[in-house]
Amino acid sequence: MPASSSSASWPALHVTYHVTASNQSELDARVESLLLEQTVELPRAALRDKFVLENIVGRLVSIKTIGAEKHAVVLDFPIRATGDDPAQFLNVLFGNSSIQDHIALADFTLPSPKEWPGHENALPGPQFGTAGLRHITGIHGRALTSTALKPIGLSIDRLALLAGLFARAGIDVIKDDHGLANQSFHPFAERVRACQQAVRAANRQSGRQSIYVPNLMGTPSVVLEQLKLAQDEGVCAVMIAPMLLGLPFMAEIVANHASVPVIAHPSFGGATRIAPELLYGKLFPLYGADATIFANFGGRFSYSKETCRKLAGALTHPSEAGLLPTLPMPAGGIKYKSVADVLAFYGTEVVLLIGGGLYEAGDDPALYARAVEFVRHVAEFKD
Amino acid sequence: MPASSSSASWPALHVTYHVTASNQSELDARVESLLLEQTVELPRAALRDKFVLENIVGRLVSIKTIGAEKHAVVLDFPIRATGDDPAQFLNVLFGNSSIQDHIALADFTLPSPKEWPGHENALPGPQFGTAGLRHITGIHGRALTSTALKPIGLSIDRLALLAGLFARAGIDVIKDDHGLANQSFHPFAERVRACQQAVRAANRQSGRQSIYVPNLMGTPSVVLEQLKLAQDEGVCAVMIAPMLLGLPFMAEIVANHASVPVIAHPSFGGATRIAPELLYGKLFPLYGADATIFANFGGRFSYSKETCRKLAGALTHPSEAGLLPTLPMPAGGIKYKSVADVLAFYGTEVVLLIGGGLYEAGDDPALYARAVEFVRHVAEFKD
Repeated sequence: MPASSSSASWPALHVTYHVTASNQSELDARVESLLLEQTVELPRAALRDKFVLENIVGRLVSIKTIGAEKHAVVLDFPIRATGDDPAQFLNVLFGNSSIQDHIALADFTLPSPKEWPGHENALPGPQFGTAGLRHITGIHGRALTSTALKPIGLSIDRLALLAGLFARAGIDVIKDDHGLANQSFHPFAERVRACQQAVRAANRQSGRQSIYVPNLMGTPSVVLEQLKLAQDEGVCAVMIAPMLLGLPFMAEIVANHASVPVIAHPSFGGATRIAPELLYGKLFPLYGADATIFANFGGRFSYSKETCRKLAGALTHPSEAGLLPTLPMPAGGIKYKSVADVLAFYGTEVVLLIGGGLYEAGDDPALYARAVEFVRHVAEFKD
Repeated sequence: MPASSSSASWPALHVTYHVTASNQSELDARVESLLLEQTVELPRAALRDKFVLENIVGRLVSIKTIGAEKHAVVLDFPIRATGDDPAQFLNVLFGNSSIQDHIALADFTLPSPKEWPGHENALPGPQFGTAGLRHITGIHGRALTSTALKPIGLSIDRLALLAGLFARAGIDVIKDDHGLANQSFHPFAERVRACQQAVRAANRQSGRQSIYVPNLMGTPSVVLEQLKLAQDEGVCAVMIAPMLLGLPFMAEIVANHASVPVIAHPSFGGATRIAPELLYGKLFPLYGADATIFANFGGRFSYSKETCRKLAGALTHPSEAGLLPTLPMPAGGIKYKSVADVLAFYGTEVVLLIGGGLYEAGDDPALYARAVEFVRHVAEFKD
């Protein structure tokens, strides 16, 4: 069993992972690895700092077998590790572990608001909720109806006509299709103005409170402009796809910018089913990364040599015209003794990233000596 | 075979998906569904607009069987559908399809820069790349070395000491561990200043150009502040985790804000291995959603009734103290004739979102009549 580190008490993020393991020793190793991965990301032997041991390292709460080779593992992580920040909260909850095939995130429980004074900074929660949407639409005691304005590519006149048609028919929530963005054939500003006016005109006739919900889509500055524009037009709710735009950005929108309810769309919610060589090797550089860290073969993660070869090749020899070559940074449990193999595999167009493999050396003089040796080794290697 | 819609020519985003199907008719149906899902999101029968048919609907390029029940399906989507926007690009590439278990994104090719004048707006690409990182570190003709400052929870003095130690040892790229955020025990500003000074001091002694790479973590406004602070301190590169912060945000950082190279970290890159009831039922509302759209059972997506029940329950009866109840919006192929079943399943605390199921009715009078019928049906339903 992985050892608990200390008896000090702190408010905990209580997380349930489903861990696949074929026998007890594999399960023990995976649980220990999970405990360390989500905060310290170092082997336990390399942990010496008392504050870290008492306040940062996760703790095992329980393990329960729930199926063939499947186990529900409950861990506590110190909520302080989240820094009360929306992005770092996700990072602690399921950052690196999300890349490990044998782990799935099943559930979590927050500390009580009293135990966690910073909770609203990290996780704003809904500002309107059910009651707000019911109030705005005037619908109580029954389900609400909704439909989408679609398909993308229709003229603005046609989209507005559909919006008015649905409002007159009594649909409560008339939302943009999630593919309606700021395309040239129906620019956001004109489209939103026309649809909002059509719904408002229908409401005046019907006496109902149907709402038009535009889809906000873009980088943060673009989305904030769209939000302002939509709110200035008088829309009563907006839609965003948080997995596309980033969950932390949704938190900021809700906390600081939106004065209307936010409807979340699931688009890109299954994004991991992207070939790793594509996600890290092509999408990351296309979106601007100058170097990309990824899970090396043979380490704590599950990529094959073939995947790593393709991934690194995509970075160093981009297939898209005009794209600068960038540096692969394989990482994630490269052992110090395997540096030669890793170099032989990637050649010189690489940044070799080793963390635990250095820290395991021991105290500072030993750590320094190993770092020097690592540098010398890499410097002497020639393709 | 799914039919191609027209012969009009447009610059295409050329995408390869791996589609699982156990026989030819299942494959045909899945390919047709994929063609429609990523742009128009309507049944083909509901597509009447000439511009949409000629310029928006995806086209089948080829299907090749690559394994037992596994097929490489190549489709063309009009690049115009992306609106030259980083978020909408992802949406077209793998938005809703990411949620379908039988589809994986395998590869894509962009139109040439000449065919796609807006490409730099959508996808900035690396601004420095390999050459930039080599120039900044002064390392040519060999692999670069890198390590991380860790674990989180160390004092700032200790982190700075480690940074200096690694720089003196000759490590080229000394990055923050991706768990170092703005926690109270090592606030970003002081930490970055101390580590940067330590590395700079070591460089003065050694004559080398080791770089310290701080980890930026937070919502967009926080990350932009951190970037400015880091750049003011003279750091020569920064690290971000684009799957945590949102790929579109990385594009904006790179295009508009960063004057130094950006290193991408894979944290949260496997985010789909989150139980759907947790991602949509708990995380979305915690991050501020007032209503959450999700894939209903029995539609185009693969969630079970049990998953939908848990998901809706998590939204309407949040387990976390102080969190407002919010409205489930099941969607994704709810047929008009199944409205009664869906209502019976969810009760009245729900927004029933039906798109194609209405549009299939036909021309505008028929569409209006069906929308009216839908509204009446929902209004008459009582728990």
